[in-house]
Amino acid sequence: MFDVIAFDADDTLWHTEGLYSGVQDKFKQLLAPYSSAERVEEILHQTEMRNLAYYGYGIKGFALSLIEAAIALSEGRIAGPEIQRLIDLAKEMVTAEVRLLAHAQETVAMLAASYPLMVITKGDLFDQEAKIARSGLRPYFRYVEIVSDKTRDHYAAILAKYRLTPARFLMVGNSLRSDILPVVALGGRAVHIPYHITWAHEDAIPADGDRERYVELAHLGLLPALVKELGRA
Amino acid sequence: MFDVIAFDADDTLWHTEGLYSGVQDKFKQLLAPYSSAERVEEILHQTEMRNLAYYGYGIKGFALSLIEAAIALSEGRIAGPEIQRLIDLAKEMVTAEVRLLAHAQETVAMLAASYPLMVITKGDLFDQEAKIARSGLRPYFRYVEIVSDKTRDHYAAILAKYRLTPARFLMVGNSLRSDILPVVALGGRAVHIPYHITWAHEDAIPADGDRERYVELAHLGLLPALVKELGRA
Repeated sequence: MFDVIAFDADDTLWHTEGLYSGVQDKFKQLLAPYSSAERVEEILHQTEMRNLAYYGYGIKGFALSLIEAAIALSEGRIAGPEIQRLIDLAKEMVTAEVRLLAHAQETVAMLAASYPLMVITKGDLFDQEAKIARSGLRPYFRYVEIVSDKTRDHYAAILAKYRLTPARFLMVGNSLRSDILPVVALGGRAVHIPYHITWAHEDAIPADGDRERYVELAHLGLLPALVKELGRA
Repeated sequence: MFDVIAFDADDTLWHTEGLYSGVQDKFKQLLAPYSSAERVEEILHQTEMRNLAYYGYGIKGFALSLIEAAIALSEGRIAGPEIQRLIDLAKEMVTAEVRLLAHAQETVAMLAASYPLMVITKGDLFDQEAKIARSGLRPYFRYVEIVSDKTRDHYAAILAKYRLTPARFLMVGNSLRSDILPVVALGGRAVHIPYHITWAHEDAIPADGDRERYVELAHLGLLPALVKELGRA
């Protein structure tokens, strides 16, 4: 039924958003002498969105945005040791333990026995490679694609590279915007497994027609049965 | 003779090191109230080397190292607006015009008519993709490989991925450490075209046996004739 089953990684196979939101909480505390928590959140989000065009996705760009937002929010009064604290937080993020989601290990092991599996993830090349290595899941994946963004064009390029037919390609991920909608737009199949936190930037509202073109599951443990069912249909 | 001719990009096809050294000069000026130029250079280099394990190669990691070194060199006295200046310099780097080296355009166009060409470059995925796009050379390259590092293992993985025989693979680049020695160690062919500045980290001293296994050229314009000659041998 499927020539390749592809998985997003961050917040699909392992926990990531908690790392970012944890650092944002510490950032608000650090900036509390200078600004309200609401304003910190607003300016940080604006800074991140503006900086995507310069840095792309990933922890290093996030760290540079934290520093820039801290300077803006404090009107330049932020001190060197406080900036160093932000750099230390970024280093903690890149070296953080990779915590797998529930059912990730057994689901991936089970599906790898029958299908070639692929990871498709966006962000910093170096950081994503390191996380895949630390996750222990690398042996289950035949292919790893680390991309700068996950638009329809990025998926089209991957399908072309591996000569895959969209209808025989299944993508599994937590982000409607990055994992699901661009894949179904190409005629691919997709399984949406929402994570309990979503970065505002990854929010998306599917069109009515789209909702019929992907399946939503509550957790990864339900995926093998679904794949079996889709194979029968 | 060759199934693929691969090119490094930074300081092989387009100027890059000048961007870094230009920013380092501005960094020394900015830090002049706090520290001697020699000490600035030393601490920045140490900071970069220590941080490679956290950030890998590329401008974003370099920017974070500049900030960290500035805090250390000023003993925390560096001010917000000075840090912002470093962030602005990083943004200037990622948006800088891509200036091709002499002969890059015609050499690549000429060789593309007879050989499949590949770019193999390391650094930030997002930044390297943007530079390849801005360079205008993208249409000449059949394959683009952006890697987190250029060790022997990285080249072995690329050769395996494209099912290439080392003896029929030619790598062209300016760095002995990253472009030449790991390739000849695998039995591949290599052409070293030194750039007029070399980042200390990329310095390497070839062993006596290695020197016979690659060719050194003064500039890219001499490459097509060399490839023709190697093809005859």
